[in-house]
Amino acid sequence: MSATSARDRIRTLYDPELIEALGKRLMHLLGQHFATVENSAGNVLNWVPPEENIATARATLEHSAEPGTLPERFDEMVRLALRRGHNLHDPRYIGHQVPASVPLAGLFDALGSLTNQVMAIYEMGPWATSVERALVELWGDAIGLDRGTFAGVVTHGGSLANLTALLTARNIALGDVWTRGFTSSGPAPVLLAHADAHYSIARTAGILGLGTGQVVKVPLDDRRRMDVSALRTLLMQCRQSKIPVIAVVACACATPIGAFDPLVPIADLCEEFGVWMHVDAAHGGAVAFSEKHKELIAGLERADSFICDAHKTLFVPALCAFVFYRQREHRFEAFRQDAPYLFDPSSPGMAEYDSGMLTVECTKRAAAYGLWGLTALCGPGLFGDLIDTTFEQTRILYELLRAAPDFETLHEPQSNILVFRYHPELATPLSAEQVGDLNRQIRRELIESGEFYIVQTMFNGTGALRVCVMNPLTELQHLEDLLASIRRIGQNRISKDSAAVA
Amino acid sequence: MSATSARDRIRTLYDPELIEALGKRLMHLLGQHFATVENSAGNVLNWVPPEENIATARATLEHSAEPGTLPERFDEMVRLALRRGHNLHDPRYIGHQVPASVPLAGLFDALGSLTNQVMAIYEMGPWATSVERALVELWGDAIGLDRGTFAGVVTHGGSLANLTALLTARNIALGDVWTRGFTSSGPAPVLLAHADAHYSIARTAGILGLGTGQVVKVPLDDRRRMDVSALRTLLMQCRQSKIPVIAVVACACATPIGAFDPLVPIADLCEEFGVWMHVDAAHGGAVAFSEKHKELIAGLERADSFICDAHKTLFVPALCAFVFYRQREHRFEAFRQDAPYLFDPSSPGMAEYDSGMLTVECTKRAAAYGLWGLTALCGPGLFGDLIDTTFEQTRILYELLRAAPDFETLHEPQSNILVFRYHPELATPLSAEQVGDLNRQIRRELIESGEFYIVQTMFNGTGALRVCVMNPLTELQHLEDLLASIRRIGQNRISKDSAAVA
Repeated sequence: MSATSARDRIRTLYDPELIEALGKRLMHLLGQHFATVENSAGNVLNWVPPEENIATARATLEHSAEPGTLPERFDEMVRLALRRGHNLHDPRYIGHQVPASVPLAGLFDALGSLTNQVMAIYEMGPWATSVERALVELWGDAIGLDRGTFAGVVTHGGSLANLTALLTARNIALGDVWTRGFTSSGPAPVLLAHADAHYSIARTAGILGLGTGQVVKVPLDDRRRMDVSALRTLLMQCRQSKIPVIAVVACACATPIGAFDPLVPIADLCEEFGVWMHVDAAHGGAVAFSEKHKELIAGLERADSFICDAHKTLFVPALCAFVFYRQREHRFEAFRQDAPYLFDPSSPGMAEYDSGMLTVECTKRAAAYGLWGLTALCGPGLFGDLIDTTFEQTRILYELLRAAPDFETLHEPQSNILVFRYHPELATPLSAEQVGDLNRQIRRELIESGEFYIVQTMFNGTGALRVCVMNPLTELQHLEDLLASIRRIGQNRISKDSAAVA
Repeated sequence: MSATSARDRIRTLYDPELIEALGKRLMHLLGQHFATVENSAGNVLNWVPPEENIATARATLEHSAEPGTLPERFDEMVRLALRRGHNLHDPRYIGHQVPASVPLAGLFDALGSLTNQVMAIYEMGPWATSVERALVELWGDAIGLDRGTFAGVVTHGGSLANLTALLTARNIALGDVWTRGFTSSGPAPVLLAHADAHYSIARTAGILGLGTGQVVKVPLDDRRRMDVSALRTLLMQCRQSKIPVIAVVACACATPIGAFDPLVPIADLCEEFGVWMHVDAAHGGAVAFSEKHKELIAGLERADSFICDAHKTLFVPALCAFVFYRQREHRFEAFRQDAPYLFDPSSPGMAEYDSGMLTVECTKRAAAYGLWGLTALCGPGLFGDLIDTTFEQTRILYELLRAAPDFETLHEPQSNILVFRYHPELATPLSAEQVGDLNRQIRRELIESGEFYIVQTMFNGTGALRVCVMNPLTELQHLEDLLASIRRIGQNRISKDSAAVA
């Protein structure tokens, strides 16, 4: 135990000069880091097995800085975190739907974090609340909603956003389920969802008490978009069997290959049948800011609810997901609670601005600070640039793959998502399953080598490679190198396997 | 439209030198900000009505930086956000259960944010996953769980943490509800919850399909702790009526006055009746790090699940909430989904390290970076210092109030939460309701003046003032000044009201 008092020890940590000094050290180290990473001077992912990383992390908690060495310890920990983290800003990172975010957005996020700006009630986060409101308007306008008649709120991630919107749909469809629970003895309600919908949709059904088995998969067309005539058939069947339909869940786009549903005819059907239309536009909602691609989400403005992730295709750091309600009055349907110490009878008009009324979160971080700061610096035109650039690179990759005889393209890209396989012609052809396994093995070796970061998926029941160009720094050369790396690893594997057989 | 290409415009924003330069500007402005705020040189809260703030925010989105003026625009936006935000680091901020967080934790949060470290699967956030694991161990050990037999995970906020744990309890209690939904025709299941439990508990019941009306409030004793004999009676009644009990929900502590439930006898009862014990230790779980106060949560280690918010009493920025399961094998019970592109059959052992299996979030930000960095710098002893200091200040405030004839203390503080009223003796005594209204009016005037930030609550049906000392910089002088300000505003109000009557 040190001879200083607890209060003195604490005061040291809140010293403005120390904060500024360490903050500047951090920014210097980050500057170096981005210079290295953006130039691919190291590995994309520095692969370390989990138990080894956990042991290192554990060890860092067992020692603290010696007196007087806080800055050195700080540097050491920052360097360690950078070394063991994932380098999304390396142009060879084109993996998950998580962007090489615009670092300047992170600075505004940092401003919120250091000063701990939060919401729930307006007075706790007046600026956090206000920038969120202004961004809801901006994005809603771009999508084509009518200003003044819609509402929106930011929440921590697309899964939570889908849950919030479908909770609203459930409460509206089933009357008093919020207060009384599931009491009806009639046919069990269903969700009619795009067959490739993100797993959070089925999870939501599980969470909300509908049951994951009550998600009816709407069949897809040959481009893996929702088949509108199949949807009509299902809606008819539900009507005839008096099965309550909580919502139709469309995708813009669905995760596997980035397919955008035909939202206009789906909206027509939902209107005709009086069913809630929800769209998971987590990935695609951002195309509203691109003149070139906004057609992809035509009809989104007719959905009763939809979600858009700024931390995906608006290129801000995680998490910043928007839930939109076409009709403003639906915003209070998800939750119907009171908390007297939050919602103040001496100022009843304020509840309109209390975000806690609209989200699962009570205390909510200022999740929109990054998006706000970035938009205030660069204007929304930046988002069009980012969409156009990454979509274009995906098209270029597609053309490269089509021209390569040992690769197989599985679909034309509609966005920045592309699924394909390495599939060379061999004297003894590989079975479909063997091709799938080969591709998964290639990927694992590829990412653990640190050369590239891409992901894998299933396509028609077998493994395939999946790229999502979430990095605007990725150039043609990187894409050509990717094909070369896959080919090299694949050929090595095939040689080894045939040697093992022989 | 500028003549530059989209790609050029984007490259400018990712320039490492620009990031470093603007980052250092930010840190300089934050250094100035903390110096001002910690010395109370301005207002705690710069009160601006919502519509005015929203109009300003809207205007910032309508203009972007002119070419070459990015740094100036950046400064301007940072200053604006600081000016319109809430100054939690002012020692006169002693309001909600949101701390004047240790700013150094925010620096590690910023590191995660600028480089966009996320989780869901291990390979996306190897270091994020590892530090979270190490912190789960550290906190679980401090609480007294058996290393190797428990599990935990970080999620975005206490409400989501409660939801996750109670979803687990529901799935275990009700068998196939996850897949089939609510199908039983027997008596509707209930939650037996502390009568003052946070509103997220009732909300959880609404979300999970149990119904908010199925939350049975367990009566409280004279210190507003759960009455153990009343709990026994309720458990007996449920058993006799064959009503399934999803969980008993205890609090450590409950929000209104910070009352800690007697966890040991509650654990005994839950064991006896074979009922899941959940504890909302969002606020109190941190006392595990205080030698002086750890007794308050004796028995927490016997709960089947509990939650602890690092973004409350471990003084890190929002959001960083921990869910703990005493039995490791329960960690996979909340969600039972697959997503082939996430969970890789070529590396099946990895699923153990994929956080997405355990949380509502799919993509999850590196929410534990701040806590990790702070602990690695200062060691967990810091948390004991913070708890002891803030609890002690609350006791001091309590003594000040007891010595003041025109204030009414409503309970002895068990933690850093204290509820009281300004209640002067008047020639014509005020009714209980009038005292409540007066206190609410005082608070509103007080916070809008920027002098102090405290909150309000209901106590025995009427309004009261509530302080939560979430600021280790608050000194005796601030507390004395608080009483003086309340008194001044209160007396003014009373004079005005009597003038109006006369």
